[in-house]
Amino acid sequence: MKRLAVLTSGGDAPGMNAAIRAVVRAGISRGFQTFGVRHGYTGLMAGDLVPLGSRDVGGIMERGGTILGTTRCQELKTGQGQQAALRQLRERGIEHLVVIGGGGSQAGAAALSGNGQSVVGLTSTIDNDIAGFDVTIGATTAVDVALESVDRLRVTAASHGRVFLVEVMGRDGGFIALNVGIASGAEFIVVPEVETSPVQVAAEIRATWARGKSHAIVVVAEGAKYNVDALASCLGRSDTPLGFDLRLCRLGHVQRGGAPGMTDRLLATRLGAAAVMHLAEGRTGVLVGIRAGCIVAEPLAESVGRKKPLEPDLLDLARTLSL
Amino acid sequence: MKRLAVLTSGGDAPGMNAAIRAVVRAGISRGFQTFGVRHGYTGLMAGDLVPLGSRDVGGIMERGGTILGTTRCQELKTGQGQQAALRQLRERGIEHLVVIGGGGSQAGAAALSGNGQSVVGLTSTIDNDIAGFDVTIGATTAVDVALESVDRLRVTAASHGRVFLVEVMGRDGGFIALNVGIASGAEFIVVPEVETSPVQVAAEIRATWARGKSHAIVVVAEGAKYNVDALASCLGRSDTPLGFDLRLCRLGHVQRGGAPGMTDRLLATRLGAAAVMHLAEGRTGVLVGIRAGCIVAEPLAESVGRKKPLEPDLLDLARTLSL
Amino acid sequence: MKRLAVLTSGGDAPGMNAAIRAVVRAGISRGFQTFGVRHGYTGLMAGDLVPLGSRDVGGIMERGGTILGTTRCQELKTGQGQQAALRQLRERGIEHLVVIGGGGSQAGAAALSGNGQSVVGLTSTIDNDIAGFDVTIGATTAVDVALESVDRLRVTAASHGRVFLVEVMGRDGGFIALNVGIASGAEFIVVPEVETSPVQVAAEIRATWARGKSHAIVVVAEGAKYNVDALASCLGRSDTPLGFDLRLCRLGHVQRGGAPGMTDRLLATRLGAAAVMHLAEGRTGVLVGIRAGCIVAEPLAESVGRKKPLEPDLLDLARTLSL
Amino acid sequence: MKRLAVLTSGGDAPGMNAAIRAVVRAGISRGFQTFGVRHGYTGLMAGDLVPLGSRDVGGIMERGGTILGTTRCQELKTGQGQQAALRQLRERGIEHLVVIGGGGSQAGAAALSGNGQSVVGLTSTIDNDIAGFDVTIGATTAVDVALESVDRLRVTAASHGRVFLVEVMGRDGGFIALNVGIASGAEFIVVPEVETSPVQVAAEIRATWARGKSHAIVVVAEGAKYNVDALASCLGRSDTPLGFDLRLCRLGHVQRGGAPGMTDRLLATRLGAAAVMHLAEGRTGVLVGIRAGCIVAEPLAESVGRKKPLEPDLLDLARTLSL
Repeated sequence: MKRLAVLTSGGDAPGMNAAIRAVVRAGISRGFQTFGVRHGYTGLMAGDLVPLGSRDVGGIMERGGTILGTTRCQELKTGQGQQAALRQLRERGIEHLVVIGGGGSQAGAAALSGNGQSVVGLTSTIDNDIAGFDVTIGATTAVDVALESVDRLRVTAASHGRVFLVEVMGRDGGFIALNVGIASGAEFIVVPEVETSPVQVAAEIRATWARGKSHAIVVVAEGAKYNVDALASCLGRSDTPLGFDLRLCRLGHVQRGGAPGMTDRLLATRLGAAAVMHLAEGRTGVLVGIRAGCIVAEPLAESVGRKKPLEPDLLDLARTLSL
Repeated sequence: MKRLAVLTSGGDAPGMNAAIRAVVRAGISRGFQTFGVRHGYTGLMAGDLVPLGSRDVGGIMERGGTILGTTRCQELKTGQGQQAALRQLRERGIEHLVVIGGGGSQAGAAALSGNGQSVVGLTSTIDNDIAGFDVTIGATTAVDVALESVDRLRVTAASHGRVFLVEVMGRDGGFIALNVGIASGAEFIVVPEVETSPVQVAAEIRATWARGKSHAIVVVAEGAKYNVDALASCLGRSDTPLGFDLRLCRLGHVQRGGAPGMTDRLLATRLGAAAVMHLAEGRTGVLVGIRAGCIVAEPLAESVGRKKPLEPDLLDLARTLSL
Repeated sequence: MKRLAVLTSGGDAPGMNAAIRAVVRAGISRGFQTFGVRHGYTGLMAGDLVPLGSRDVGGIMERGGTILGTTRCQELKTGQGQQAALRQLRERGIEHLVVIGGGGSQAGAAALSGNGQSVVGLTSTIDNDIAGFDVTIGATTAVDVALESVDRLRVTAASHGRVFLVEVMGRDGGFIALNVGIASGAEFIVVPEVETSPVQVAAEIRATWARGKSHAIVVVAEGAKYNVDALASCLGRSDTPLGFDLRLCRLGHVQRGGAPGMTDRLLATRLGAAAVMHLAEGRTGVLVGIRAGCIVAEPLAESVGRKKPLEPDLLDLARTLSL
Repeated sequence: MKRLAVLTSGGDAPGMNAAIRAVVRAGISRGFQTFGVRHGYTGLMAGDLVPLGSRDVGGIMERGGTILGTTRCQELKTGQGQQAALRQLRERGIEHLVVIGGGGSQAGAAALSGNGQSVVGLTSTIDNDIAGFDVTIGATTAVDVALESVDRLRVTAASHGRVFLVEVMGRDGGFIALNVGIASGAEFIVVPEVETSPVQVAAEIRATWARGKSHAIVVVAEGAKYNVDALASCLGRSDTPLGFDLRLCRLGHVQRGGAPGMTDRLLATRLGAAAVMHLAEGRTGVLVGIRAGCIVAEPLAESVGRKKPLEPDLLDLARTLSL
């Protein structure tokens, strides 16, 4: 029986468990015995693998996080680390590897592939920043969870006549901020991709006040040049009043841990099954994801290091509709 | 100032309010004064219109249903009904109409367009059954709400060792059933598109029992040839035991009324803004929706009466993974 | 080391897992080794017991249902059944038993106690119908889950101008209906404790229409003399129009399977710990619950067969406020 | 017709809208015309009052925050402020006042009562810190919302093998921290009422690690002597490793803005109706709340400045069960 290992790597994302389940069960239907690697590449290098049968992945699809555990592993970037990983697979007679994770994790997968390992990557990160793909496993749920929190902040903001600066995740990109911002009807959105000064933010808040709104929400990506602390500090020093009382809120890791919604469960399930199909049919060294609504696979080597740009017309749209 | 009317029609869908908001506010930015038609085409024929300003559509995006009200209107199918509708618009100097709704409602929009009315349709129905479009406003939230209920049924099914027959909406199509089924890991899915006998359902339940599972979920679209009542009645008469105790649950209209999630708010916002853009640029008689991830407009006349087929490979996938 | 068995019985209720966890862990701190009985009294009679350590009950508190499984067991009502149960405990050297369940299950516990078994009951049923106690484990979450559904029905009811007859659980009592009804602002509430004719229901709906409301919600306990089917059928035959279109919805078992909220987790935790304390201190044959905000224990024999009456002033209150 | 004014004051709490609705509608049934005061005592002093009829309070019960707005008003503590407030009521012929809020707001109500104003207070604060009452309007929902977030943090903590320091609201008391901590199975709870050193916290985390747990949660009240920042800074400087990676999360104002659950809607409804009953029957200068499960009224003057102590046995219980 052919052997296959699956691991999750990098930041956890809602839907990873659904992907693991799909890999294991689609694997069974195509004659693979699957092993789960615990704690990402770190566990792979250390040989921390357990066999996974159909029952082991029952009742996990609806749960956030990853039952396999995950790490951000630096050592796999070294040739030594890669050799350790390959050795562990070889020693167990495991021919194939499925890597569920974001850009950094897929760079690792590309490196292993470059060393001759049969590997397929599954696009999964809440940041949705992998170029060439519509959306990654976990991103939809993360935005939905953040949105639920911003809806709640709006309630208390309206009761007190306040403006909230809300920090959402996104160290390098504004995907979460942009989508949460539009879907919550935020009065202003600050993303790393567009330089935004505290003066602009203050002007928008004052304009909202002047327009007669009872409160305001400004959604700020954590990786913006001026983050919520910097903005609050600048706005606090301003001589011209904002109109509203100012508060800030950092949503933090709560955004990661939600139970996956339908979109992420379905995407993860389809990608997991597709990964096994590619392995079964001998297509390896590819990254599997969704593009223009279709499941596609592109060479891992091509996707490494390419960040997905933000859709600029959505920022304009947000602005137009925050009247 | 140019005048524009907007109405919601047919079954209510989560996200309709976000679409109304987008139409009103994008309208303002392009120099339109918008009127809201109450109670769909029925209200249009009766002249039940109210002006909608920016503040009137504040705080509505996060709420399910439609603030304008909606009906399933038979009278608009007649020439007389159409003339009444057109007369009301003419009398008020309203040049353009935006119709938010599903297939039946867009047939009405096509009829008005055929009478020379400038009209743009927005694809919105929880059934996601309009050919040519990826997904319609409301469908994602409806599936998410149904999924949440099925997750809860699974909990009690597992505690008692039961099989649940769960009816979800879908009189003519299996979209909701299929997606809820895959995302909930249902042991079997029954859709109108595929004839399924009670004998097959019983066989699947017995196979699940034989596989050692502690419980089972069968998701059934309301429009399936054998609905949950018929299935339960047949299974109850069977001589061979199922293994599990049998219960049934009809999720019902709860599926309609959820607060829209990010996906529906964002889609509705983009479609609403696109509809106004098309009107402003003189492209009318079109239906606006999302296809392959892009916002597109296609002639209303072409979309009338075309049902979207179910993705057959998803049914196979569901089967493979319910091991 | 003293030995203790714990079982869940009757309908599953959110919070049962928190009670199991508390019994196991409070047990450890007082020197008990705990065994979990699978599938309620049925499993007890069959000797289906597993040892439960601290790690076995980690990560279960936030999940609905019961990890031990549950049944409605008729056989325990017989002397033979009781002897079988006692024998299984004796054979394993298990001195004490904790029974988590509602009225019927506690009658079983009283019977075992009458046979000389050391037993403590924990009040847990979504029906909250055990006389002498404020609220039972599971009732708060069940009402919250039903309430969420009724909130959603109200949204679609308002969009279409409809009246919904909503059936909630409660075969013998109106606790869930009453509380869901008040908390959802239902226009009328039908409970088994108060005979209500279809004529009255119709009159209330017409009065609501006359008052200018856009829609109406009637919450009906499943055990009411006229259930939703009977009511719908009578109302449908009425010559005088209701004003609103009529729809019905049966919330069903979804009400059972919610993830327990804070109130049920806390109550279950406190009751589980109290049960162990009573056993450790030699007080057995008691039923543990909350009364006037305090954890109390009363003789099992006294609580058997006593149904808790509905608070009548709450029905009046519901009426007053549905203006 | 007798006139009655109602205001919300201090921090907003889920359920305040249900209380407003109950006051208005119970008022109608007892012959009162109700006026809503906007923005708390600030609005009262400025004469910002609007008449509220039955339809004005429809559809608000399920929404968080307060439709009337609220402020933390310092000026009412002065005699001048109180006279301004009384004058506004007198000028409008409004005899009675209902104040919905926490301890500080009820001190204001007591002051007005001392000036001869007919006033009834309703206990509402998420902090549940008013001595003599079981629980206040808003506290249950706030804990439930915080709990949901901690459940999510646990998911990501478990995936990465981390310890999270989670800050919950509670500047002066540990009610939220204690209840969230027990209900989430937190490994340690830090409250203002019990001095806790960083060394103790570190020891507990290390003990959790030693016990073989995969992650840990420490819930910290914002008013604890060492808050999450101080703790994180101390723990970060420690030479002995914690075992787990450390992260912190401040839940912030999200805790305030949830949609009220059944418990808060029901409590608010009962208290609102009781307040009107007391006014109608001439009992004023009282604070209405729930004690030992019953609705009670106690003299406002007696409740001023008395903080409710934390239940110390619950802290012990939390400790026992975090094995």
